Amino acid sequence: MQLKVQPIDIKVGKYKVILNTIDAKELGVNEGDRVRIKNHETLTAIVDFTEDMISPGMIGLYHEVKEAMQREWTETIEVFPAERPRSTYIIKKVMDGNKLTQEEVEILVKDIVEENLSEIELAAFLTSTYINDMTDDETEWLTRSMIDTGDKLEFDSQIIMDKHSIGGVPGNKISLLIVPIVAANGLIIPKTSSRAITGAGGTADLMEILAPVEFDADEIKKMTEEVGGVLVWGGATNIAPADDKLIKVEYPLSIDPHCQMLASIMAKKGAIGATHVVMDIPTGPGTKIKNVQEGRKLARDLINLGDRLGMDVDCALTYGASPVGRTIGPALEVIEALKVLENFDGPNSLIEKSASLAGMLLEMGGVAMKNQGYDLAIETLKNGKALEKFKQIIEVQGGNPNVTHKDISVGEFNKDIIAPTNGYILELDNKRLVQIARLAGAPNDKGAGLVLHKKQGEPIKEGEKILTIYAEKEAKMDTAFQSANTRPPFIAEGMLLERIQSFKEI
Amino acid sequence: MQLKVQPIDIKVGKYKVILNTIDAKELGVNEGDRVRIKNHETLTAIVDFTEDMISPGMIGLYHEVKEAMQREWTETIEVFPAERPRSTYIIKKVMDGNKLTQEEVEILVKDIVEENLSEIELAAFLTSTYINDMTDDETEWLTRSMIDTGDKLEFDSQIIMDKHSIGGVPGNKISLLIVPIVAANGLIIPKTSSRAITGAGGTADLMEILAPVEFDADEIKKMTEEVGGVLVWGGATNIAPADDKLIKVEYPLSIDPHCQMLASIMAKKGAIGATHVVMDIPTGPGTKIKNVQEGRKLARDLINLGDRLGMDVDCALTYGASPVGRTIGPALEVIEALKVLENFDGPNSLIEKSASLAGMLLEMGGVAMKNQGYDLAIETLKNGKALEKFKQIIEVQGGNPNVTHKDISVGEFNKDIIAPTNGYILELDNKRLVQIARLAGAPNDKGAGLVLHKKQGEPIKEGEKILTIYAEKEAKMDTAFQSANTRPPFIAEGMLLERIQSFKEI
Repeated sequence: MQLKVQPIDIKVGKYKVILNTIDAKELGVNEGDRVRIKNHETLTAIVDFTEDMISPGMIGLYHEVKEAMQREWTETIEVFPAERPRSTYIIKKVMDGNKLTQEEVEILVKDIVEENLSEIELAAFLTSTYINDMTDDETEWLTRSMIDTGDKLEFDSQIIMDKHSIGGVPGNKISLLIVPIVAANGLIIPKTSSRAITGAGGTADLMEILAPVEFDADEIKKMTEEVGGVLVWGGATNIAPADDKLIKVEYPLSIDPHCQMLASIMAKKGAIGATHVVMDIPTGPGTKIKNVQEGRKLARDLINLGDRLGMDVDCALTYGASPVGRTIGPALEVIEALKVLENFDGPNSLIEKSASLAGMLLEMGGVAMKNQGYDLAIETLKNGKALEKFKQIIEVQGGNPNVTHKDISVGEFNKDIIAPTNGYILELDNKRLVQIARLAGAPNDKGAGLVLHKKQGEPIKEGEKILTIYAEKEAKMDTAFQSANTRPPFIAEGMLLERIQSFKEI
Repeated sequence: MQLKVQPIDIKVGKYKVILNTIDAKELGVNEGDRVRIKNHETLTAIVDFTEDMISPGMIGLYHEVKEAMQREWTETIEVFPAERPRSTYIIKKVMDGNKLTQEEVEILVKDIVEENLSEIELAAFLTSTYINDMTDDETEWLTRSMIDTGDKLEFDSQIIMDKHSIGGVPGNKISLLIVPIVAANGLIIPKTSSRAITGAGGTADLMEILAPVEFDADEIKKMTEEVGGVLVWGGATNIAPADDKLIKVEYPLSIDPHCQMLASIMAKKGAIGATHVVMDIPTGPGTKIKNVQEGRKLARDLINLGDRLGMDVDCALTYGASPVGRTIGPALEVIEALKVLENFDGPNSLIEKSASLAGMLLEMGGVAMKNQGYDLAIETLKNGKALEKFKQIIEVQGGNPNVTHKDISVGEFNKDIIAPTNGYILELDNKRLVQIARLAGAPNDKGAGLVLHKKQGEPIKEGEKILTIYAEKEAKMDTAFQSANTRPPFIAEGMLLERIQSFKEI
């Protein structure tokens, strides 16, 4: 069918066209079917319908199709009904509980990366793997396909270190310490990190305060070769791009299918050429991993998958029920990390966790003897070598190496949350802490966040500050403050958990 | 956040807005999250992102949001992050294999009807119920909710008849005979039908040749009260609207979850107030129901669900491996049905099936004694009463009651497919027959389709016509003819199934 082109300058993240219902019927296609565009043998697009937006005889081309056709732009194009991509049948197989072959997994991942699948099809795939986990074989193939469909880093060195935190614990700024410690000891650690999606600040959000974090694979390689380590945003690279596309569909469903989580983590490690990886698995209420049993299961699965991919993986179950350190939110966390690097001045929970995990990497990388990694890590912090390395990393990424913690500015508005009674902090609520930090503006407002003056187990006196909220904007300050007072992110001994009145006053 | 309104005149079938990434981050929402629009307490919209299409400070409102705001249109609007609808948590529950309460099913169906769920969320729900079927309780609640969220017909009569075919068998024009037979005997049968989605012609596509088929619930009621029966398109009504919205997501996934299929069928029967229903379950290779066991299971489930809803359901497993009658495609099927009504002239398979199912309805409705329904149905065809009633139905729907089969025009192009050898027709391939009819233009080109001169088991002589393809357009004629010759829709005794050559010539 010959149709007149009408460009629609909307990005839909897919190859999509829109047909008048009359033409679509004539062509014999339904919504969600594909059409092939002549002279574009490889360009098939998903069909949307309209009854009035596009006139009969016209075809609306969304941005991506228009872009793809740019070189051979014509006023009219010929379209044909096209077969569904083979991936749709592969997804049906997953829905039916059948196992895939390696070739099928590869075809599927390729179509995911090339945006050949609709959101409906991706959601069906992810829901199916959420309900029926993939086998170890399938998960390995999935990981390998994710690696192979993106950019890879290849270093001359035989040993490449990496570190990953499963997430779910606020204030986890440890990469800012671990990467310089490891690189300062002569190991190579090209660390890609994420930005916060539901959290108050990912490592990339933090590092961005000190230096640019958006680089492509070549630049990452070059910088790493120069100073031994980097701290960059993985989302700016084309490393394991399938993962980002899956996350966009997982997010609205609030799911993270086990096989996808494994593949997502390990593909990023595999693509940067990691040979030795430490996994931080925060465990406990309020984290992704509810208890030690679950943590051990995940650790085994990660080690097993690493083994299949030729990677040494060591896992650390860490205490996740409370935040790491005493700050939450980009600028506040950077200040806390810099203080440790500059003066070995900081909360025990931050220094201990960072040194322990860095120590594991130092031992795995062969620069520390067994059981001496932790000591070497502490030593590297104390003697200033970690700070020196961090400055090199900041500089190579284009930041100011002379920055100190005093240069980092926090939000100009702040308010304290006060102890309602004498007693102890029995519990901190991770999820509520993150919510309040986000209401205050984190991670988008870098200066927004929380400082915890009291942590779990610490004594409090009535009227004492428990935490301070920082915000860049007064309205957000008020919203966060009000939320924190209405539903506090902690339980103090002696606090009423609930008050039940015979007559509720409004 | 205060944003300047930019209308986007695209219908997306949902309440959707589009924000610049910068504003979205400031607002703290991710893609797929919801925002609430102030002064529109009940209007929440799903968020899309753009980096360039909408400038910071602006908000793009897709057609549906714009429409909803029409009365209180303002240049700028205030938006807030909104909670996800409760349905998203209910869907998560289904994904986790947990059972729903009646209230949860009701909330979910309401949100489906009101377009509050994204395609991703709907796909997750349908995939979950495809993998883990709903319980009988859940299926009943689903059906009731589908009925209650749409228009209902309420008749004075205590007995309302209905009939449904599960589908999958081509040429199944039986409703055109059954409805007039049943109505001619004084029973009430307000039949809503579908158009073909993947088939060559649904009952609504056929009936449309004779009279308009698009009416709302009130009109259907009025016409039925006048002449006892109608043959209308269900898609034009607001009867069980949830079903259409689910089918839009099921179609691209090629799934029809068991519980959804049951609810879909029975909700439409329940909404028109049916008390007695006959189900036609075509069984055999090439149909939806592969074998008798599966057919019996479906029959039991339909009868059970009918029981819960207070409906008498009788099921007939019918022979589905071959087409019903000798025609496929709207006009050709209408001609075949009219010939039976006019002169009792037609293929045995069509007359037998129609009279059997109509007979069941006549017995259930109490106008024929047990085992005498079939005879009464045949009698009603022979004595012209069915034709007379059909003319009344055509007339009440606004068609020409004096139409005869000679007035129906078929495609001006036709070509024969010739027997390649002497022997017998061993098999007809339903799916291929439908494909060829669709290539010829059916159901959109009403005059396109197939006439089968030979059916399964019939002797053929080399050079004899096996089938004739009709088309309205020459190009479609050629495509269909070529396809039928390349891959014939039948197997004749003596035909080579495959020819393997040592050197393939191209």
